[in-house]
Amino acid sequence: MENSEEQKYGVRKLEISDKSKGFIELLQQLSVCDSVSDTDFENRFRELSAVGDDHVIGVIEDEPSGKIIATGSVFIEKKFLRNCGKVGHIEDVVVDSSARGKHLGKRIISFLTEHARSMGCYKVILDCSVDNKAFYEKCGFHNKSIQMAMYFAH
Amino acid sequence: MENSEEQKYGVRKLEISDKSKGFIELLQQLSVCDSVSDTDFENRFRELSAVGDDHVIGVIEDEPSGKIIATGSVFIEKKFLRNCGKVGHIEDVVVDSSARGKHLGKRIISFLTEHARSMGCYKVILDCSVDNKAFYEKCGFHNKSIQMAMYFAH
Repeated sequence: MENSEEQKYGVRKLEISDKSKGFIELLQQLSVCDSVSDTDFENRFRELSAVGDDHVIGVIEDEPSGKIIATGSVFIEKKFLRNCGKVGHIEDVVVDSSARGKHLGKRIISFLTEHARSMGCYKVILDCSVDNKAFYEKCGFHNKSIQMAMYFAH
Repeated sequence: MENSEEQKYGVRKLEISDKSKGFIELLQQLSVCDSVSDTDFENRFRELSAVGDDHVIGVIEDEPSGKIIATGSVFIEKKFLRNCGKVGHIEDVVVDSSARGKHLGKRIISFLTEHARSMGCYKVILDCSVDNKAFYEKCGFHNKSIQMAMYFAH
């Protein structure tokens, strides 16, 4: 199994050194994100680390280049509903444009859903564009409802 | 302004004594929720209280009856995206079936969105059925994307 795709493209948790491996540049392929200062990055990293398994960011590193080429996050919502149930929320899934077609998105989603399951969540949810519906159906999701948003002007 | 609707139906944060005021029974109108033991309720209440403003549950109490007749929650997601931005997630909004038509849902949503804004979120989002789309549009939301879900069989 040496050098298998499984080993080559394993998912691990985000590390603080991943900022220098293009993690922010990868997020910029998904949405608006200016460059983030090292201090801001470290502060946010420590805030998220402080909640441990309640907020996990998975990444795939391309070993030859040392670049982060896929990522996604999941955080655990604690409810009173469903007998004090828990829900996993998946956010910010992106695969580097140069690394599409290697099923890295599916690996990331599998990592995040398994984390939610292991945390005792009764479901895991995410919002996506209609264009990505078929991909998430292949990952085992189904369309449940619609997402509404309100943007604030600060 | 004494006895105005504003005062009568003000939104306040959930208190531990609200379990005895029908809070769980109200949630049962929204989704599956068996009765919750006092211990489970208190444990979850303390877990949520520990994160302070990062997870807030608003309620409206009907003073004459001492019953909780509307509720909704918002929690704050901390991202790296959007320059280490924050997003408010609204969940579990429900108005007692006997108290519809008094705009209590709108009060709850206003309370939750204002909390998200005050926390520095760049947006607030929620998932709902197509049937509730018009209500949320009146609250200032717009349809952004679709929600996908995966339920776990435990």
